[in-house]
Amino acid sequence: MSPALLRHPRFVSLEGGEGAGKTTAINAIRDCLRSHGHEVVLTREPGGTPLAERIRGLVLKPDAEIAAEPLSAEAELLLVFAARAQHVRQVIQPALQRGAYVLSDRFTDSSYAYQGGGRGLDPQWIADLERRAVGLLPGLTLLLDVDVAVGRARANGRDLWPDRIESEQDDFFQRVREVFRSRAQQDPQRFALIDAGQEQARVAADVVARVERWLQDGEGA
Amino acid sequence: MSPALLRHPRFVSLEGGEGAGKTTAINAIRDCLRSHGHEVVLTREPGGTPLAERIRGLVLKPDAEIAAEPLSAEAELLLVFAARAQHVRQVIQPALQRGAYVLSDRFTDSSYAYQGGGRGLDPQWIADLERRAVGLLPGLTLLLDVDVAVGRARANGRDLWPDRIESEQDDFFQRVREVFRSRAQQDPQRFALIDAGQEQARVAADVVARVERWLQDGEGA
Repeated sequence: MSPALLRHPRFVSLEGGEGAGKTTAINAIRDCLRSHGHEVVLTREPGGTPLAERIRGLVLKPDAEIAAEPLSAEAELLLVFAARAQHVRQVIQPALQRGAYVLSDRFTDSSYAYQGGGRGLDPQWIADLERRAVGLLPGLTLLLDVDVAVGRARANGRDLWPDRIESEQDDFFQRVREVFRSRAQQDPQRFALIDAGQEQARVAADVVARVERWLQDGEGA
Repeated sequence: MSPALLRHPRFVSLEGGEGAGKTTAINAIRDCLRSHGHEVVLTREPGGTPLAERIRGLVLKPDAEIAAEPLSAEAELLLVFAARAQHVRQVIQPALQRGAYVLSDRFTDSSYAYQGGGRGLDPQWIADLERRAVGLLPGLTLLLDVDVAVGRARANGRDLWPDRIESEQDDFFQRVREVFRSRAQQDPQRFALIDAGQEQARVAADVVARVERWLQDGEGA
């Protein structure tokens, strides 16, 4: 039997595809939470600890010595969950335990979307890894949803050197988007779906309004 | 439902604790197989591909930047299985498919012993990872079994800089040994238990005799 999955009221994740405007949005959420007097730990995935950042490098930006070796979907999934196991134990849990808010740029939903939807791995396997290696769910997940072509046009203007995931094709990102949307639909209590097709300032404003409402409703506490 | 686990007749693994004499034995097995005219691919775990060797470094010999970060048992397990997924797809399967014998210094049994027995992780989780990320069992596994104190006395004479696993205490290695022995007992068709308390030349001779018998019985073909 797999261990339990606990949802934490001070843990916020931000999810979305390429070019959805996550960076602007996450800074706006951080400022919003701080304006309420909360300590905020801003972090990201894959990564968040020295070892997890090293794993991120292996997955996304392999150096010349290993770039020629095709990364299997299975190894990619196991590497991101190894990084996540470290991230939860070294950064997220200690911060939540001392009363801080944790704001993570991506979390386990990204594995369902990218390794499940994108790479076609069994979501039941991902759910098992989530319970065994992570054990934690965000109290609030903001999903920045944008049309794949629109998001990629934005991202391509920015990235001179796209990483291993950014180099995938449109059908990959279409599957990623579908999984994100379907997860949001299945768990409306945790997810807030944000229209990220709008201009960035508008997206950030919608995100902040959603966080404010969440704080007022007493869910994030 | 997990995928199937296939046992391959030309795949040989060598298992055992610290100081069991694996290096001498594996060279003797390689020479024995070659004397029969077979191509032999000699490999090891964790490792065997450029990426998997990089993962080995993270697990066993972390550099100064990451050595201070405690590695969780869960992340250790996921990292060794990520390395194994690459090893199987990049090295072992291609070699078996072209007709070579593959001889691996450690394979999945080590995860049951070290991460299961040693670290106390659920063997059902390991079995699930084995089916999903590996899918392959050796046709013959030679287990070099030696008393923990005897093996460690040998290993300590050799290692000036013990790695993260070698630095564990005796009770850890006692649990590792028990899991190896119990797996050998449960699957006598695949395992050959070798008394590695003898002197190294004698251990190697026993191992080679066992491989010769396996070849004559037509199991390894």
